[in-house]
Amino acid sequence: MGALIADEGAATVWDALRTGRRPRIPEKGPVDTYERRFERWRAQAAGVDPDTLLSAAAESGIRLVVPGDPGWPSQLDQLAEHRPYALWVRGVHDLRHACLRSVAVVGARAASAYGLHVAGELAWALAERTWSTVSGGAYGIDGAAHRGTLAGGAPTVAVLAGGLDLSYPRGHESLFADIAARGTLVSEHPMGTSPTRHGFLVRNRIIAALTPGTVVVEAGLRSGALNTARHAQELRRVLMAVPGPVTSALSAGCHRLLREWRAVCVTDAADITEHVAHIGDHMRPGTGTAMARDGLDEESRRVLDAVPERSGAGTATIAATAGIDLDAALGRLGLLAAGGFIERTLSGWRVRSGSSGDTGDRVRP
Amino acid sequence: MGALIADEGAATVWDALRTGRRPRIPEKGPVDTYERRFERWRAQAAGVDPDTLLSAAAESGIRLVVPGDPGWPSQLDQLAEHRPYALWVRGVHDLRHACLRSVAVVGARAASAYGLHVAGELAWALAERTWSTVSGGAYGIDGAAHRGTLAGGAPTVAVLAGGLDLSYPRGHESLFADIAARGTLVSEHPMGTSPTRHGFLVRNRIIAALTPGTVVVEAGLRSGALNTARHAQELRRVLMAVPGPVTSALSAGCHRLLREWRAVCVTDAADITEHVAHIGDHMRPGTGTAMARDGLDEESRRVLDAVPERSGAGTATIAATAGIDLDAALGRLGLLAAGGFIERTLSGWRVRSGSSGDTGDRVRP
Repeated sequence: MGALIADEGAATVWDALRTGRRPRIPEKGPVDTYERRFERWRAQAAGVDPDTLLSAAAESGIRLVVPGDPGWPSQLDQLAEHRPYALWVRGVHDLRHACLRSVAVVGARAASAYGLHVAGELAWALAERTWSTVSGGAYGIDGAAHRGTLAGGAPTVAVLAGGLDLSYPRGHESLFADIAARGTLVSEHPMGTSPTRHGFLVRNRIIAALTPGTVVVEAGLRSGALNTARHAQELRRVLMAVPGPVTSALSAGCHRLLREWRAVCVTDAADITEHVAHIGDHMRPGTGTAMARDGLDEESRRVLDAVPERSGAGTATIAATAGIDLDAALGRLGLLAAGGFIERTLSGWRVRSGSSGDTGDRVRP
Repeated sequence: MGALIADEGAATVWDALRTGRRPRIPEKGPVDTYERRFERWRAQAAGVDPDTLLSAAAESGIRLVVPGDPGWPSQLDQLAEHRPYALWVRGVHDLRHACLRSVAVVGARAASAYGLHVAGELAWALAERTWSTVSGGAYGIDGAAHRGTLAGGAPTVAVLAGGLDLSYPRGHESLFADIAARGTLVSEHPMGTSPTRHGFLVRNRIIAALTPGTVVVEAGLRSGALNTARHAQELRRVLMAVPGPVTSALSAGCHRLLREWRAVCVTDAADITEHVAHIGDHMRPGTGTAMARDGLDEESRRVLDAVPERSGAGTATIAATAGIDLDAALGRLGLLAAGGFIERTLSGWRVRSGSSGDTGDRVRP
């Protein structure tokens, strides 16, 4: 469906589903699968009345934001065919704006007192530095992060796995009311949709994609937070983990991320903003990538300029071109790689295709 | 003095100090500094009677081990001019043998209950896997590590900063008696020497050099354990850190090591042995390096063989030569670098000169 909408546009696809006139077959995938899927979509679409959905939502203060709208968070475009078709949004903030300076703070539902304390403190201290948080609205770490951000006076974004009218979990009904009043509630599902296990997992990609970095506060080895962490890595966002006592199973997932060098170790809000601010405070609209080259500090930009587009270059060559010493270059290259600007290939460092650092971006708007 | 002994041999230097006949001037350093130092050493040597020292030590069950003795831990030779001239040793174990499968476990003196628990548990679990510990005999983490190892039935090595007859700190008198009975006490200072602040710091180089890896269990930002960590890094040993609550100042040093990618995150004994065993269980005598190429696993050895001696090579070239895939090669290269076998240079990976992987070592004994 994502590929079809990308090819044909949402209006054309909707029209096709209502009339039964299939658009031309997309190039990917076998024809019979496509035909079967199209019939399934038709059946699903048959029960949908967009006008009723929209007017019921509007009565509950819920609006629909679609790609191309001014409030559409263009960093989601990096999800490509997994980009949400649209987002239902409730709250006072423009969603895109609320995520400009944001960090995803995620973790276990059955968190420990330690985890709840750390999540709340981090979110509060981030809010003091005017950074907002994005999380999943669940019990435990998610809730502590949302509350900490609101207490610190910044907006928080809760990405829910069901309809925004349902308040799942029930115990967060008043928290969600607070978020609607002082932050933003988001879902890709229309009103009335109950969350499913699958829904929670695919929701995590949105949390990771909305933010330049994800912090895992407390996570067991099988925690859903590690799913969000994997999305953050795949999207080349900064992945951070908070350590905890090695005697706590709830920190085992964080420690594994650290042990495998997948996440950087962060212990306070200053650590976190250092990592994401290096990459740039700004999300740039309209490029299909999340992080803006223009938001990089001077030295990182010099290093990025020294990284070739196609054939890779060694660290020494890049350091020499950028005119900085090798240690500094190594540090910057690491940060740029963590930020998805560049990648290490067989032949050395090169600009990641499709990243904000690529050719198209060299010409400043 | 270290350089002089290396050039002339200890017996010649001692003879010169007693007679006042200066050996030829070493090439390094200005002549007048050398002459002033020589006179200072003469004055110090004047009060020393080796025979009395040795016989008094022997009466206390303390023996002197010097470079070249069968029990000399040749991994200390990597300290070059900072190698101890000799070591006073007390205990049932051959010092070299006691360090064959050992890990340095270090940390804060004013440790928390968490740190003491973790140090003791780690040391005990390492002992169960027949790994011994080396530490500094201090209160806190050191003491917990020594005790844990003894409880687990393995020998432990305490490297003290003063004479072995002094039992510093006093409260560890019975612990030191246990170690003398079931492990080894070591000092580079003769009987009667009180430890000094400087003595504690230079002692740390021996702890790091005796072992293939150092684990920092709990350390504040200004902890002496971070000094041992720096020695371990400079000696290219594996540096490991145990995370803890971010709310604890006593874990801040460990977290800094993790944040700066200087140490690997370890949470249990299996993590630790995985990191040091990859590098090799065996210390090889007589090479001036700590870790034996022969102790490497098959794949690491293939990768090491594929790393050039002089001009560096890229990861892809090395992977191709070794016949393993790029990801596996990257992992092995990281471990080999952590183990001091290879280094990353301007032109790529190459064998570290003086390492167990260098030319002299390619011809197996």
